[in-house]
Amino acid sequence: MEISQLGEFGLIDRLTTDLSSVQPTTLKSVGDDCAVLGYDGTTRQLVTTDLLMEGIHFDLVYTPLRQLGYKAVMVNLSDVYAMNGTPRQVTISLAVDNRLQVEDLDEFYAGMRLACEQHQVDIVGGDTTSSLTGLCISITCIGDAPEPAIVKRSGAKPTDLICCSGNLGAAYLGLQLLEREKAIYLQQVKEGRVSDNAPFQPDFSGREYLLQRILQPEARRDIVQTLRAAGIVPTAMMDISDGLSSELLHICKQSGVGCRLYEERIPLDYQTAAAAEELNLNVSTCALNGGEDYELLFTVPLSMHDQVEQLEDVSIIGHITDADEGAVMVGRGGTEMSLRAQGWNPLN
Amino acid sequence: MEISQLGEFGLIDRLTTDLSSVQPTTLKSVGDDCAVLGYDGTTRQLVTTDLLMEGIHFDLVYTPLRQLGYKAVMVNLSDVYAMNGTPRQVTISLAVDNRLQVEDLDEFYAGMRLACEQHQVDIVGGDTTSSLTGLCISITCIGDAPEPAIVKRSGAKPTDLICCSGNLGAAYLGLQLLEREKAIYLQQVKEGRVSDNAPFQPDFSGREYLLQRILQPEARRDIVQTLRAAGIVPTAMMDISDGLSSELLHICKQSGVGCRLYEERIPLDYQTAAAAEELNLNVSTCALNGGEDYELLFTVPLSMHDQVEQLEDVSIIGHITDADEGAVMVGRGGTEMSLRAQGWNPLN
Repeated sequence: MEISQLGEFGLIDRLTTDLSSVQPTTLKSVGDDCAVLGYDGTTRQLVTTDLLMEGIHFDLVYTPLRQLGYKAVMVNLSDVYAMNGTPRQVTISLAVDNRLQVEDLDEFYAGMRLACEQHQVDIVGGDTTSSLTGLCISITCIGDAPEPAIVKRSGAKPTDLICCSGNLGAAYLGLQLLEREKAIYLQQVKEGRVSDNAPFQPDFSGREYLLQRILQPEARRDIVQTLRAAGIVPTAMMDISDGLSSELLHICKQSGVGCRLYEERIPLDYQTAAAAEELNLNVSTCALNGGEDYELLFTVPLSMHDQVEQLEDVSIIGHITDADEGAVMVGRGGTEMSLRAQGWNPLN
Repeated sequence: MEISQLGEFGLIDRLTTDLSSVQPTTLKSVGDDCAVLGYDGTTRQLVTTDLLMEGIHFDLVYTPLRQLGYKAVMVNLSDVYAMNGTPRQVTISLAVDNRLQVEDLDEFYAGMRLACEQHQVDIVGGDTTSSLTGLCISITCIGDAPEPAIVKRSGAKPTDLICCSGNLGAAYLGLQLLEREKAIYLQQVKEGRVSDNAPFQPDFSGREYLLQRILQPEARRDIVQTLRAAGIVPTAMMDISDGLSSELLHICKQSGVGCRLYEERIPLDYQTAAAAEELNLNVSTCALNGGEDYELLFTVPLSMHDQVEQLEDVSIIGHITDADEGAVMVGRGGTEMSLRAQGWNPLN
């Protein structure tokens, strides 16, 4: 059977079927942003890992290595924040091919170090090897949280409010702009109008925010801290890496609930809307399915409505329902439609 | 600068220069088999990670996926045992290209699960994605040990005995046999004498042990348990993945000592010796520089000579000296030579 027939989550389901834990220190295994470990003491350890492959997750034509290093760390930290934890350590494994020079790796490491410094995370180990074909980055992050603070995907309850930090779709639009300019650049190289070692430096003025969202995303520690300061513990939380609809369906499935999402409440930046217009894309579709925003999606009890409404950079975008009401999006015109996961699938 | 000019350890030194830790939970960072973390309680967490790339670390022409899965886990467990710890959890990340079918991944996972079951280790997370070119496996293992039990590379003292488990060079000879048969097979395919989808099934009878050593190595938990039962705590320990000479030099450097290694004491299996003879290779060179044996190299105080001598499957191969005596190998004829790291370098 072809792997693409199963898709990422189908494959993970198949490979992790009957996966039982024998270690008493394993408190939560596969299926959330992080595994939860409980060594002695009351602190819990959170573990997450991400594998980034050249040509699949990033394109070195338009991705500066410093920003790639920064992002590679950030996507892991994001998973720890999504459990309401604090990242503490990372291990960094790299496989590099001979196109890269030592100075390129210096740049990559500078970006990783900057990300780690900003979040007070230590680089404690890793592996460095060669690759026959392309750069491969594997990062594991270990964080911690006191047991009662940990927020899983499985705690959402009917009537809970669905909240989202920041805005969505910007990273996807940034990627589309980069891909468009890359195609133009390659065409120019092909036609001999620019040399193939000419730098790829298109004019992105006015679109800097979108580029930053795709190339150098920020893990939302600030939101976790804001919630903590406000005394709000989400009932469920995860980060938005594959797209809002896909992530919301994860929460619904793991919490055994349904949801009503209001299209008009999905937070958008004006640059996102403008770029979608220019590229003739439906901006809601970009926000729902684009992915890579690394915003936090979380649910809070309805009783916290007033507190949540006052939080800066947090939007209430819908509410949780009983499972039998399904996962529904209410469109701008009031039409209801089923929410479907059309997020980014790395195995297609 | 080309990365190969620096080599793996030169590159790691460059990238990790000035790497300081800010987290109080980071007790030991880069530079040993595992990082050592100290969350609350008295147990320490050990973290290690390995990245295995197709074409660099393994060749699917002669590596069954089930054995590859087994080995990929085992090499990580070996690093935890090398700190005198107990592995508890692994995360497993895979990037697969479209040559592999779902059934192939089932095989790979079966091997990983077997390794985990045998060592009571839980698979707690990971990442699954696609690759444009070849299989990529990244595994992180988390283990634990009480603080006083942890054995680092840095504790060897002059007069300590240098010990080694099992025997060396077998994995390297196994690899040479596989490579020789692969070359014959490819030549036959090229000449049209066998079809290119004919299975690669050369006759390795009498050499099964060597093949097992390269394809399905065992992490030496038994040695760690034996030492524990005998009340012997090594002063320094690491696993032999890159080759005896390279690893012994790591211990000397990190402990600030020298060593005298006796060539005639290096443990060899008769199959290793026979295959070296057949392939016209110097068997000592294979044992010193071959790598991938995943035996344990450790030092114990001279006062424990009698206890260590009685241990099954452990050889005393030399002793630690003052740093100014250098790292010396005493050859079979009594000639002395400098020990040099000529172990496997994944960046050459």
